[in-house]
Amino acid sequence: MKRRIYLKMHTLEDAKRVFLDEAPLRPLDSELIRVEDSSSRVTSSPVFAKISSPQYHSSAMDGIVVRSTDTIGVSEVRPKVLILGKDAEYINTGDPIPSEFDAVIMIENVHKIDDNRIEIREAAKPWQHIRIIGEDLVKGELILPSNHKIRAQDIGAMLAGGVVDVEVYKKPKVCIVPTGSELVEPGERLEIGNIIEFNSRILSDLIKNWGGEVTRHEILDDDYDLIKNSIESLIDKFDIILIIAGSSAGSEDYTPSIIEELGSLLVHGVCIMPGKPVALGIIGDIPIVGIPGYPVSAIIAMEEFVKPLIFKMLGLKAIKRRSIKAKVKQKIQSKVGMEERIRVNLGYFKEKEWGYVAVPLKKGSGIITSMVRADGILRVPKLLEGFDKETEVEVELLRDEEIIKKNILLVGSHDNALEILQNELKVKYQDINLLLINVGSLGGLMAMKRGETHITGIHLLDTETGEYNIPFVKKILSDLEVILINLVYREQGLILKRGNPKKINGLEDLIREDVHFINRQRGAGTRVLLDYKLGELNLDKSKIKGYDTEVFTHLAVSAAVKDSSIDVGLGIRASSNVFGLDFIPIAKERYDLVIPKVYYELENIQKVIEIIRGEEFKKKVEALGGYDTSSTGEVIFEG
Amino acid sequence: MKRRIYLKMHTLEDAKRVFLDEAPLRPLDSELIRVEDSSSRVTSSPVFAKISSPQYHSSAMDGIVVRSTDTIGVSEVRPKVLILGKDAEYINTGDPIPSEFDAVIMIENVHKIDDNRIEIREAAKPWQHIRIIGEDLVKGELILPSNHKIRAQDIGAMLAGGVVDVEVYKKPKVCIVPTGSELVEPGERLEIGNIIEFNSRILSDLIKNWGGEVTRHEILDDDYDLIKNSIESLIDKFDIILIIAGSSAGSEDYTPSIIEELGSLLVHGVCIMPGKPVALGIIGDIPIVGIPGYPVSAIIAMEEFVKPLIFKMLGLKAIKRRSIKAKVKQKIQSKVGMEERIRVNLGYFKEKEWGYVAVPLKKGSGIITSMVRADGILRVPKLLEGFDKETEVEVELLRDEEIIKKNILLVGSHDNALEILQNELKVKYQDINLLLINVGSLGGLMAMKRGETHITGIHLLDTETGEYNIPFVKKILSDLEVILINLVYREQGLILKRGNPKKINGLEDLIREDVHFINRQRGAGTRVLLDYKLGELNLDKSKIKGYDTEVFTHLAVSAAVKDSSIDVGLGIRASSNVFGLDFIPIAKERYDLVIPKVYYELENIQKVIEIIRGEEFKKKVEALGGYDTSSTGEVIFEG
Repeated sequence: MKRRIYLKMHTLEDAKRVFLDEAPLRPLDSELIRVEDSSSRVTSSPVFAKISSPQYHSSAMDGIVVRSTDTIGVSEVRPKVLILGKDAEYINTGDPIPSEFDAVIMIENVHKIDDNRIEIREAAKPWQHIRIIGEDLVKGELILPSNHKIRAQDIGAMLAGGVVDVEVYKKPKVCIVPTGSELVEPGERLEIGNIIEFNSRILSDLIKNWGGEVTRHEILDDDYDLIKNSIESLIDKFDIILIIAGSSAGSEDYTPSIIEELGSLLVHGVCIMPGKPVALGIIGDIPIVGIPGYPVSAIIAMEEFVKPLIFKMLGLKAIKRRSIKAKVKQKIQSKVGMEERIRVNLGYFKEKEWGYVAVPLKKGSGIITSMVRADGILRVPKLLEGFDKETEVEVELLRDEEIIKKNILLVGSHDNALEILQNELKVKYQDINLLLINVGSLGGLMAMKRGETHITGIHLLDTETGEYNIPFVKKILSDLEVILINLVYREQGLILKRGNPKKINGLEDLIREDVHFINRQRGAGTRVLLDYKLGELNLDKSKIKGYDTEVFTHLAVSAAVKDSSIDVGLGIRASSNVFGLDFIPIAKERYDLVIPKVYYELENIQKVIEIIRGEEFKKKVEALGGYDTSSTGEVIFEG
Repeated sequence: MKRRIYLKMHTLEDAKRVFLDEAPLRPLDSELIRVEDSSSRVTSSPVFAKISSPQYHSSAMDGIVVRSTDTIGVSEVRPKVLILGKDAEYINTGDPIPSEFDAVIMIENVHKIDDNRIEIREAAKPWQHIRIIGEDLVKGELILPSNHKIRAQDIGAMLAGGVVDVEVYKKPKVCIVPTGSELVEPGERLEIGNIIEFNSRILSDLIKNWGGEVTRHEILDDDYDLIKNSIESLIDKFDIILIIAGSSAGSEDYTPSIIEELGSLLVHGVCIMPGKPVALGIIGDIPIVGIPGYPVSAIIAMEEFVKPLIFKMLGLKAIKRRSIKAKVKQKIQSKVGMEERIRVNLGYFKEKEWGYVAVPLKKGSGIITSMVRADGILRVPKLLEGFDKETEVEVELLRDEEIIKKNILLVGSHDNALEILQNELKVKYQDINLLLINVGSLGGLMAMKRGETHITGIHLLDTETGEYNIPFVKKILSDLEVILINLVYREQGLILKRGNPKKINGLEDLIREDVHFINRQRGAGTRVLLDYKLGELNLDKSKIKGYDTEVFTHLAVSAAVKDSSIDVGLGIRASSNVFGLDFIPIAKERYDLVIPKVYYELENIQKVIEIIRGEEFKKKVEALGGYDTSSTGEVIFEG
């Protein structure tokens, strides 16, 4: 099979026009369903009341029903006695008004004399406290127009109007076809080269939320004829077909060719990132979409093409996400000619005034967790090279603004204790999210200087004084008043494969020919520590194989040691423990939280400190191993 | 049974504190469910990755995998040939990196020489285009904290992290018990005095949307022991019990007494309107709520008490509805001491600047259609008597602002053709809502003068000149430039019971002793017409029985004639036809739409006019009977 290259790439607008506006589309059938079961369905014809509501003149109050003419002239000073069963009758809310009466007096204004007689002290206007026939709905009245998405109150109104069945559009039937010989089902045994097929489950949930009905096809191997024949057999049974993966330019990317053979390939490749390798086509009047295999690309392709398609079929307009204005505090680069979507976290920060700041998350379209963590999406228009720092941008929201405003950003060094903190906070205060962005200790201080984080976490050894953290804070955050609070003391050391097969005994062994190392990124406190220790021992770092291979967390170091050809890395004992690896201690270091005074007294931040100081938190952290919490929560420095 | 009066009425805050914060609450159990089925469920413990993703170093691109050291010094001017199978291998996105290689070159930059050899023209940095183990998720990493509501991307991330089952809170089990001897199920035969039980269906949908699981109990008659015994038998089986109706002060309102007998009645009566007659209690640690029987009151009681209760059980915080600022253009009265909730429509209007205006809908808590039609809810605080006109108020939104901004308000006279227009507009342009508010012709002109409507519909006969509409527009809207467009000509006449049992032959018969009339509200064009015709005939309107009974639409007149002791009303033929009633024509009148020039050119308004001028609309209107569309869409007047 030849690799295929993209047809002419389409702009997003062009692709939408060709696929959503111009391509033929088979209309959805309607069906009659019970009103009780119609929640979130969409009316396919107008709904008119079959009966009036109320169906008869009825009492709007608990009280007595009277003839208004009998009450003329009655007042506090001229009360009147009425005979029950003759001049008046007790009546409850909703009861029909007997035809001889025409007004209701509220029970609060009725004075009982005995079982047969009552006294009233005010006149009743004709028709007072009476709900006239049809007050709510009149037979023949329009209750709901066509193309209306049914809500709880609509169900109530239809039933009140005597409507028990309602005509709605059938749900668009969407078939999802995952392809790829490397795919295995969740829970199945994973071999090297296998990938868990989770994209179809994301798509499936999106489609259900948008009002479609999902059928998931079994995984198909990368076999041109197998995929082609399977798709062919689905055409008559579904309204939309989605093929996951195989739409890119690899040697086993068959989707565009198959669409072309069975129908028309309208678009292959769209100028959006993530989401570029999407394929859009029709077979007859059935839309078919090649969804990119990377999960973030898949979600974006779904939102740009499949959501509006389903909404169009259902006669609805898709509503844009809400957006807010935010500033970016670092230069954001983007490729000209591509409309980029950057996942960001958002925080509410104070400079001269309070306002939102957007902090970009990792870009990779394979990083599904970026969609889990993001607060919003920043679109970089096609013709921009990105944004300069301090630019005000528009961010589409993935969470409610009310929640986002309470976000606490913690951009800085990674530590397992922070995840415990994050979870404890969520359990105790459901609306406060602690967002952890791992950029290392120096990165954290720089983010704080830029005004991108409420808290940073650092463990930086000053190699001249041997002092931790404070010298760096004084230097980098010289024009900011901050408070340092100890989070933990922790053990750093060499993380080794279980049983230490390469017999590594210390840092001296890192320069051995047969030893592969994995490093932390520049600016990470752990890397600072490594360089300091290598210097002490006069070891030449250029001799270390893998010194330039960088990962961003302790856990990532451990994972690489556990499951790849890498033998050793430097990291904390807790992360070594997670993987059951061997560990040789190198240093005990202090990990502190830095909080600017302007945020320190905020209710949210105080809640964080309250949790850090609690016994529950310390106990859970100690249980990870390699931690000393004897100073946890103490103020280390103010200035 | 004695009528019971309210215990001390509680303020809303007090009632919430007593019921939601202070009362004991049995915690929900957790259950382990498949991640695939976990959409919208709430995690009850933190979710950590069981495996890393990717699980191995893998290619991030389609291309070739190489040793970076082999490529040192390679450039456009110093290309290098690599032997496939020795120096390089083809690789697809996601494939594992063989352990002898450490970099990927994109396929776009690979130049094929023959089947065994390729040429590269750039150096590869170590680890370029490689996804390192754990790039997305590292084993042991926190994927989701506790108390997190699961979304599509969360499902993807959990599966990517090797998590196939997730611990979530069990859905709160809510039992809804409708009570009332007058209730019948939807679709059952209705006798006078029967009411369709639709409240439980509204509640049911709300609870499902909030994350609860609903069981609907069969309808219980108003029988103290029956209700008490039924509730008693439900206590062990549910987490929340809702009793609909019987919580007020009528003679058959048993709910508060039953709660008191079985457990503790914490609150009876809350200072909100609608929603006052709510009863809140606990039986052991099971919350029990007496929900008012009027549907709007029921919805408000649900939102104030049951929604936060369910969210609390699930460990979530309920998010407030979004709100916007709007002006009111008429005085809004409210009872001091009660926190009132007023349903409003919203429109975007131009005065000096563009801004939202809130137009109140009918107040009655029995009017479920007010919840169908409303765009938002205006809260009048407890201690205010209401709002003066021109006050800026905060309105909680029931629809998306994007939709609301496109709303077209048509406050004015009612005509059946308007409902056709409303539906046609929705079918053709899904995001434009035409909101019909029936206040009669004069009411419509006054609303336009106040700046509360984009269009008004009028049919007003000037009794001096015999001319329709224009004299009123000139007088009332003297400082506004408007355009009049004809909607229809239509027949007005007497609407009579089928077969005309009272032998009514004309307006002269209205003053007969045995004839009961129903009138339209003051300011309605139909009432103006009636008074004019009565004057022509020198008939004394004080002799007409029911002259003071007012309803707001033609359909309401017809409904009253059809199904009550009322014999006759004045209205249009189309509405008489809906009910199959007899009709005696009295006049043919012109019904015009009035549109201020400032709105006339708006895209939305032009779409309305386009539909009115279309043949489809005219055909559908003619089919109603009694209409002449020969001038429909014509400009009648500009000035």
